[in-house]
Amino acid sequence: MTPQAFRQAAELLRASQRSLIFTHLRPDGDALGSSFGLQETLRKMGLEAEVFLPGPLPNRHAKLFSGQLTAVAPEELANFNTFIALDCANPPRLGKPECLSMEELRKKRFINIDHHRANSLESGFFDLVSPDSASCCEVLTRIFLESGAEITPRAATCFLAGMMTDTGCFRFANTGGGTLREAAELLDRGAELEKIVNALFFSKPLNQVRFENELMNSCLRLSAGGRIASAFIPRSLLDKYDFDLREDEGLIDLLREIDGVVFAVLFHRGPDGVKVSLRSKDHAFPVGPLARSFGGGGHDMAAGATLDLPDAEAEAVILEKLTALLP
Amino acid sequence: MTPQAFRQAAELLRASQRSLIFTHLRPDGDALGSSFGLQETLRKMGLEAEVFLPGPLPNRHAKLFSGQLTAVAPEELANFNTFIALDCANPPRLGKPECLSMEELRKKRFINIDHHRANSLESGFFDLVSPDSASCCEVLTRIFLESGAEITPRAATCFLAGMMTDTGCFRFANTGGGTLREAAELLDRGAELEKIVNALFFSKPLNQVRFENELMNSCLRLSAGGRIASAFIPRSLLDKYDFDLREDEGLIDLLREIDGVVFAVLFHRGPDGVKVSLRSKDHAFPVGPLARSFGGGGHDMAAGATLDLPDAEAEAVILEKLTALLP
Repeated sequence: MTPQAFRQAAELLRASQRSLIFTHLRPDGDALGSSFGLQETLRKMGLEAEVFLPGPLPNRHAKLFSGQLTAVAPEELANFNTFIALDCANPPRLGKPECLSMEELRKKRFINIDHHRANSLESGFFDLVSPDSASCCEVLTRIFLESGAEITPRAATCFLAGMMTDTGCFRFANTGGGTLREAAELLDRGAELEKIVNALFFSKPLNQVRFENELMNSCLRLSAGGRIASAFIPRSLLDKYDFDLREDEGLIDLLREIDGVVFAVLFHRGPDGVKVSLRSKDHAFPVGPLARSFGGGGHDMAAGATLDLPDAEAEAVILEKLTALLP
Repeated sequence: MTPQAFRQAAELLRASQRSLIFTHLRPDGDALGSSFGLQETLRKMGLEAEVFLPGPLPNRHAKLFSGQLTAVAPEELANFNTFIALDCANPPRLGKPECLSMEELRKKRFINIDHHRANSLESGFFDLVSPDSASCCEVLTRIFLESGAEITPRAATCFLAGMMTDTGCFRFANTGGGTLREAAELLDRGAELEKIVNALFFSKPLNQVRFENELMNSCLRLSAGGRIASAFIPRSLLDKYDFDLREDEGLIDLLREIDGVVFAVLFHRGPDGVKVSLRSKDHAFPVGPLARSFGGGGHDMAAGATLDLPDAEAEAVILEKLTALLP
């Protein structure tokens, strides 16, 4: 991406009088940080901006973010002249108001800002997809730093929260010098690192701690000579601790961090089948292709898919295919 | 600290013909990263430098660091004209060769570089103590960036490893804009973030995973209405999993990260009594003073002490004092 592309994005955003911002379904820290950080920054420019989310905020995020619209009626669409999609790779994942079809959206002043290489939103107006950025918040921060816009402490906190989410607190391989420099700029502008870390990383509810410990004690499975760590999460365990998996983005890291593990895999039964989350610790063995072969998606090192198969069969087929990838 | 102090340190280091570098006992990632990063940087300047460590490297660190002297005979001391202590706050913690007394050391060309506010080494030659730096590696990186010295990829990896250790991967409150900018410079110079993270953070031996899960399942104790999370580590559990606590700098974070916890406390019996590790999550309630009142030390948010008391009594007195600190 050229600096011009970022400055062009800044100009278009600055010309957005009344924006409706949305992001992907089941939003994570980057989706929410992007949305609320952009809203704050646009408002600081004297522009109107609303964030729309189709569902409630995950608990952990409610400590950092608030103030979204949860419904937009068809007649209210006319209140907005700009529609902005953030951190969303494709139309099915887009958490837009139901009354607004992709077709209509593409006829509007529709701005698509993302960091997923395979972004296929095709706004028809303006797309800025920066796959070299570790997070959508990094893209937005760069836009506003390039253009000299004011980033308030509140916006800085939002953007830093997203950066830290998508880089696993600057531990994942997507962390670059640029990521850290932008994060430094956000700290200089008053981003509350401690608040973010306490909300997102040092704040496990006790039921989650109990759930994770029992899961690891009773469901951890090592295969391929210890190179695959997997766990099939029983519904009963979620019920026992009244635990919602949406609250636990980092669960799979408990498997990934085990010495010698190349692939970490989590399974659980969702409404459409067995949901599989995949992580690789070795660039020589990406998991993206496997996820896509099952109709899923993601990055090389982090991907997922849903298999319409019985539990045991889904587990067996994934572990078999992963084992076959290893030498 | 003024930039001059850092440049002066650079000049003195550059004039060190044959250095012996040492650090604190039971060295962590910052102690080792400082030592081996400085060695590499001095050698790159064409100077001689050795790292001395009185004990073996912890396993996790052996993946990143190697090549230390493990013994220095009295007659070998004359081989060195400069002695450099890194990341060490006081004489009793200094892991220097036995044949070298503090008194003799203070008569030599003795350079003391550290980031602990309460540093009391008093080298008699040159002390650079920078309490605003999150790690000793941050101090050294600043020294070499200020002076324009070449930081090789290997040295950059060492320094970044120390920074990431002492900031908990840039999650602790000591992380500043300067920390992140220096880390970015190190990434630009070829620091291998992924290697560091895989060695120090995403690389738990299976026995450690099992140990931690059982500890949390059977020894986690919540008191003061959930504001204190503590665990007394039974010797039997360490034996069961053949686990060495030295390998687990992050163990206490399992307690600290629980929602609502203000104080995290780990107890275990060492050779001199009950060793207590203390962490605070709230600046209003520092743990340093309590640790010091028992003859221990540390920072406001992370401190420790050893109590010459029976197990149950040590546990009781600490929990009582911590509870009394809370409103």
